[in-house]
Amino acid sequence: MSAERLLVIGGDAAGMSAAAQARRLRPAGDLAITVLEQGPDVSFSACGIPYWVGDVVSDRDALIARTPGQFAAQDIGVRTGTRAEAIDLDAGTVTTGAGEVLGYDALVVATGGRPLRPPVPGLDAGGVHGVHRLADGADIRAAVAAGARRAVVLGGGYIGLEMADVLHARGLQVTVVLADPLPMTQLDPDMGERVCKAMGDMGIEMQTDQPVREIETDADGVVRAVRTDAGSYPCDLVVLGLGMGPEVALAEAAGLQLGVTGAVDVDRTQRSRSHPEVFAAGDCAQTHHRLTGEAAHIALGTHANKQGRVAGSVIGGRAARFAGVLGTALTKVGELEIARTGLSTAEAERAGYEFRTETIEGTTRAGYYPGADPIAVKLVSDVGSGQLLGGQIVGGPGSGKRIDVLATAIWAGMTAEEFAGSDLSYAPPFSPTYDPVIVAARVASRVEQG
Amino acid sequence: MSAERLLVIGGDAAGMSAAAQARRLRPAGDLAITVLEQGPDVSFSACGIPYWVGDVVSDRDALIARTPGQFAAQDIGVRTGTRAEAIDLDAGTVTTGAGEVLGYDALVVATGGRPLRPPVPGLDAGGVHGVHRLADGADIRAAVAAGARRAVVLGGGYIGLEMADVLHARGLQVTVVLADPLPMTQLDPDMGERVCKAMGDMGIEMQTDQPVREIETDADGVVRAVRTDAGSYPCDLVVLGLGMGPEVALAEAAGLQLGVTGAVDVDRTQRSRSHPEVFAAGDCAQTHHRLTGEAAHIALGTHANKQGRVAGSVIGGRAARFAGVLGTALTKVGELEIARTGLSTAEAERAGYEFRTETIEGTTRAGYYPGADPIAVKLVSDVGSGQLLGGQIVGGPGSGKRIDVLATAIWAGMTAEEFAGSDLSYAPPFSPTYDPVIVAARVASRVEQG
Repeated sequence: MSAERLLVIGGDAAGMSAAAQARRLRPAGDLAITVLEQGPDVSFSACGIPYWVGDVVSDRDALIARTPGQFAAQDIGVRTGTRAEAIDLDAGTVTTGAGEVLGYDALVVATGGRPLRPPVPGLDAGGVHGVHRLADGADIRAAVAAGARRAVVLGGGYIGLEMADVLHARGLQVTVVLADPLPMTQLDPDMGERVCKAMGDMGIEMQTDQPVREIETDADGVVRAVRTDAGSYPCDLVVLGLGMGPEVALAEAAGLQLGVTGAVDVDRTQRSRSHPEVFAAGDCAQTHHRLTGEAAHIALGTHANKQGRVAGSVIGGRAARFAGVLGTALTKVGELEIARTGLSTAEAERAGYEFRTETIEGTTRAGYYPGADPIAVKLVSDVGSGQLLGGQIVGGPGSGKRIDVLATAIWAGMTAEEFAGSDLSYAPPFSPTYDPVIVAARVASRVEQG
Repeated sequence: MSAERLLVIGGDAAGMSAAAQARRLRPAGDLAITVLEQGPDVSFSACGIPYWVGDVVSDRDALIARTPGQFAAQDIGVRTGTRAEAIDLDAGTVTTGAGEVLGYDALVVATGGRPLRPPVPGLDAGGVHGVHRLADGADIRAAVAAGARRAVVLGGGYIGLEMADVLHARGLQVTVVLADPLPMTQLDPDMGERVCKAMGDMGIEMQTDQPVREIETDADGVVRAVRTDAGSYPCDLVVLGLGMGPEVALAEAAGLQLGVTGAVDVDRTQRSRSHPEVFAAGDCAQTHHRLTGEAAHIALGTHANKQGRVAGSVIGGRAARFAGVLGTALTKVGELEIARTGLSTAEAERAGYEFRTETIEGTTRAGYYPGADPIAVKLVSDVGSGQLLGGQIVGGPGSGKRIDVLATAIWAGMTAEEFAGSDLSYAPPFSPTYDPVIVAARVASRVEQG
């Protein structure tokens, strides 16, 4: 009997994790694995692109975790530069751009995300760049090297803020243009306000509440300015940081069932709801929120990695389930660290919780220790049970990774009071006697007590 | 009816937390509060002394959180320089050094810790210092200012290592002399080995497995060398970093019941087992381990603070219980961060667990991001249930505070597998795609699966 055939479309975090995990569990004689990747690279760190643009990381190849050759050594066939044009779900085949027809017994759709683009004129002008593929990073680096002086970043999510930060650090005059009233809508407004103010203080111009209307170009079709209802912001470089939607054109055309988020609808084993021999993982797949159980779509490398691994396990014959997301995220702008997990106020409201919020301000180290920087911690908790629902942190160096403590407490279903009693570490170079996350939980549990 | 009288012996973390919390809950007309403190200061950070000695913090007063005057403003009477000489438990009185007899309705014993001293000749020589009171810090600073060149630190626990670090940083030639085979016996030997090697590489001389036999002095009674069976280590300064025992002389003389650890035996409301009107909190009080339920004694400011607060709540009329300790601790030597929580291998063995350990090595940031430093994470977990029992971390900047994530997971009773699925943050400046603590949990849960 010949080997079964696993075909993977997309060679980034989700696809390669699925392939590698399936291979760990089934040898080549039992399962043949082929990965189709339209780009030139597999397993690259999209999250690293801003730091490459910022020249914090100078070597492009450093962003590539593993090469096709390394996968080949594990009997995983990787075909870069190979675009999947169509999936025939009935026949169980994928047709490539070159017209080749490849059969599969199991298929992993890992087509990733699609940078969101505002529906405005001029978006295809020269000097307008996404932040998606390594080629985007190369283009922006080239623009900076060629003397770009003024950049407009559209969007105030993680990628937008990171790009604003690194371009500012490289000496460009940077304007962030947002349709929203504040950057980081994943945060509550009071916390987003802290980010907005800090960025302004760093010298990054924040133009909020202004949907972009047009990318103005010069006679050569090169960007000249970004226009909103409130003004026109001259620039020679535009970066699209508006977030990522699921890239599902191929899946949708094939007739794979999509979920309410627009991403491929899968169960907790990453198996497609409509076609059991098809799996989806990563930015193209829908997932669920750990607390609410509701459908969610969060484009992030960690989830992609884990979901790919789950799909690969199941294909490999081992039971596995994706345990859901809390929407934990972390970034920095200059020295300011920004992090969140669980439900924001708006999300808790939408989910129908009766909740309360507490915000405390403290320091990252003992107050007397050099480098003790301000840190603000906000907690969202359920009024009835005291259960922790969400956490947000904005502060100086050392603040951000504290979100993992809150994410763990929320993951475990702890109440504010239980968490407040927990035994966290203390030493003057690292925290005040009570860590700020504990102070926040103490305040929240005091409130519970009335 | 006149106010009840709360008397507190000891004006540091535990005593002042008890006083402050009792005052929050009961006004002065209802409860009179008096604190007796034998030293000149209350509420000072003993944990900060090494950093004051190291001149990382230059202002002594920065180590004092609150002054007697600030407490007086809250109607808490603080009598510094007032030593409690005797407690009469039957009469409900405390006699001061000046012979004054003070009656109480409730008593909080917060006499703190006692630096352990090896039973060797010469310990009272000039140039031999503990690290307990601010006066000790002042003495060591003076010795350094007067030109001390060579220091021997006795003991390899937190305080010993921190003192070795700061004296080394101030340019002294430092030798650490240990009776144990490795520093940091709170860690497993393989992790302690990493600390020992790193300190040696920094230029701190590590003399292990050598109980001290004598402090050798010159004709003036000033320290000249520390002698062990293996050698004699010349020095002009000796620092005692052998850890802290409970200071219970007063309690024991009065007839308060002590526990198996030698500390005052209290229930989870910090109430003395033998005398219900007497509470004890902080370094003089026994506590219990969260996982094993066994009696424990861990001298640490955070526990002292929390226990004092529990005692103050109960005295104030509000139910409260101390939730136990995991032995979480954190320190640094140079750039090396060292942390632990829960049960070490030796502790898990003593507690009768069938356990397994996993140690992984990773980096503190994405491998390609500048400042990605090595980090080692060791997990101890229960074989049958997969429950996490303990964690240890040794690594570069950013490593240590990760212990809080493990402490929270252990506090919540999570299994390695549950924790491995949790949604921790990721961004290249802060961690690899999978945080090292998650990698360790994944390896541990893979092992569980056989």
